[in-house]
Amino acid sequence: MKKLTYAVVGTGAIGGFYGAKLARAGQEVHFLLHKDYEHVRAHGLRVSSCDGDFALPSVPAYDSTTTMPPVDVVLVGLKSTNEHLLRSLLPPLLHPRTLVVLIQNGIGLEADVQEWFPGLSLAAGLAFICSAKTEPGHIRHQCYGSINLGNYSCQDSELFQAVLNDFCQAGIDAHEVDYAEARWRKAVWNMPFNGMTVALQTQTDSLLRHPATRQLIYEQMMEVIGAANALGISALDESFAQKMMQMTEEMVPYSPSMRLDYDFHRPMEIHYIYTRPIATALAAGFPMPRLQMLERELLFLDAQNTAHF
Amino acid sequence: MKKLTYAVVGTGAIGGFYGAKLARAGQEVHFLLHKDYEHVRAHGLRVSSCDGDFALPSVPAYDSTTTMPPVDVVLVGLKSTNEHLLRSLLPPLLHPRTLVVLIQNGIGLEADVQEWFPGLSLAAGLAFICSAKTEPGHIRHQCYGSINLGNYSCQDSELFQAVLNDFCQAGIDAHEVDYAEARWRKAVWNMPFNGMTVALQTQTDSLLRHPATRQLIYEQMMEVIGAANALGISALDESFAQKMMQMTEEMVPYSPSMRLDYDFHRPMEIHYIYTRPIATALAAGFPMPRLQMLERELLFLDAQNTAHF
Repeated sequence: MKKLTYAVVGTGAIGGFYGAKLARAGQEVHFLLHKDYEHVRAHGLRVSSCDGDFALPSVPAYDSTTTMPPVDVVLVGLKSTNEHLLRSLLPPLLHPRTLVVLIQNGIGLEADVQEWFPGLSLAAGLAFICSAKTEPGHIRHQCYGSINLGNYSCQDSELFQAVLNDFCQAGIDAHEVDYAEARWRKAVWNMPFNGMTVALQTQTDSLLRHPATRQLIYEQMMEVIGAANALGISALDESFAQKMMQMTEEMVPYSPSMRLDYDFHRPMEIHYIYTRPIATALAAGFPMPRLQMLERELLFLDAQNTAHF
Repeated sequence: MKKLTYAVVGTGAIGGFYGAKLARAGQEVHFLLHKDYEHVRAHGLRVSSCDGDFALPSVPAYDSTTTMPPVDVVLVGLKSTNEHLLRSLLPPLLHPRTLVVLIQNGIGLEADVQEWFPGLSLAAGLAFICSAKTEPGHIRHQCYGSINLGNYSCQDSELFQAVLNDFCQAGIDAHEVDYAEARWRKAVWNMPFNGMTVALQTQTDSLLRHPATRQLIYEQMMEVIGAANALGISALDESFAQKMMQMTEEMVPYSPSMRLDYDFHRPMEIHYIYTRPIATALAAGFPMPRLQMLERELLFLDAQNTAHF
């Protein structure tokens, strides 16, 4: 197979990191930028990383996908609050066999994009990483960095494996995982902690320290696991919730991305992190009362938080 | 029946109001005070009321129940966070036929006091009133003012009726109601609105304006009604929740007492407003997941809010 070409849609903390790693390893990567376009066109990208800093002084930078070439692989790192933009952003990047990898949080992302582009090859990218874009074109990678790829609708297994291989060649810990299981597995952590740190204006460690919220977080995790089980994903059980509790306890006090979005008065990713999985579970006969309550609290807070901005 | 004697334990917005009304009507009322003792002993009580202002320049004021006489009726207006104090406060006030009326919010108050004083005659007082103690010895009564009395363990129906009669003679709209039904009926409003205005730092009107929290409030009301039904209280149904929604919508924007407690860094009445009814319902096989989640959020917020005071 000839060398693959890549595009990154949403060159932020996540898309920017993985795209820069691939580019540094010699892959052809085209970067779509928005606010940082002028800066990156002039100065390239910079990654300050726990694994060693590096800079790419010159990268193919674009401010519109209409001027970008069709590529073999699109890595989507957009905030899912902008998911609808993919309807117009993607078409110029696609050739008949393009694989689009959604490196985003939530449930229902692939289903929506598939509805907009019925024949498209789609995969989920589940990133386990602490990183942030701290300045224009500058990504700070604090820790972790692995990515799991789940195949949603890609018939071309050779292409899928080649992408995995490119990630590994670029020094990224990348593995293939079962799509649905991986999305729900990640939701076990994401659904409790993202919203609760916003609702109670706190961090992961404080939530686990107070017995009342510790119990609530555990119950919320069990709601996600119950939903996954109801959807036929049997690999998740109580022991995974216990593992996630313990893992979080061993982490430094952490503010998940939703807390950062809230603090900076950006819209929160409520739809794909809460509304969709809750609706999906309910359609399978499994209600999630605690996480639905959290969703409603977040919708209220989001409206107040973004009203004046 | 000879004229009844009264004591007020907790001369605040509620106990102070009803006690002052009774005293103005000529009843013998002894007032227990704490912080306001010196002021009230010197200047008496003042009520600024939507029904007409009045002052009682001289009232029997005490800073300890040990110096108070035994009375026929004790009106308890304490914050339920201080419920345990009744174990030592009540004995000096009691003679063999004393009726103690708990004018407090929540579920389980009478059960606890009965356990501490097995032979005691107890009743619930359910106040529908907007009032506040704004300065020492000064109660501001904004609107409403009725009280419902529910008989918990008073065998002396003549005494119970005489108390009702005294309230009415004092110009208070007072009625006898079924004890358990009345306590749960009040919880239908109290459980959603007290906690949610704290959790989302808002008021009643905003909660009803956003469709997400409006739906959540309604679901929480239905949890209380479901719990009441499970406990054999059949008079409450969906139509009562609808009525409470509408009534609240017609009120001015309102901060319930728990929101005021939180804002002034006072401990919140979580135990009797949430923990006890939730445990009571669960023991009857009815879980209240949304209100239990709210209880846990409140326990977390309470710990943070009172930690430095």
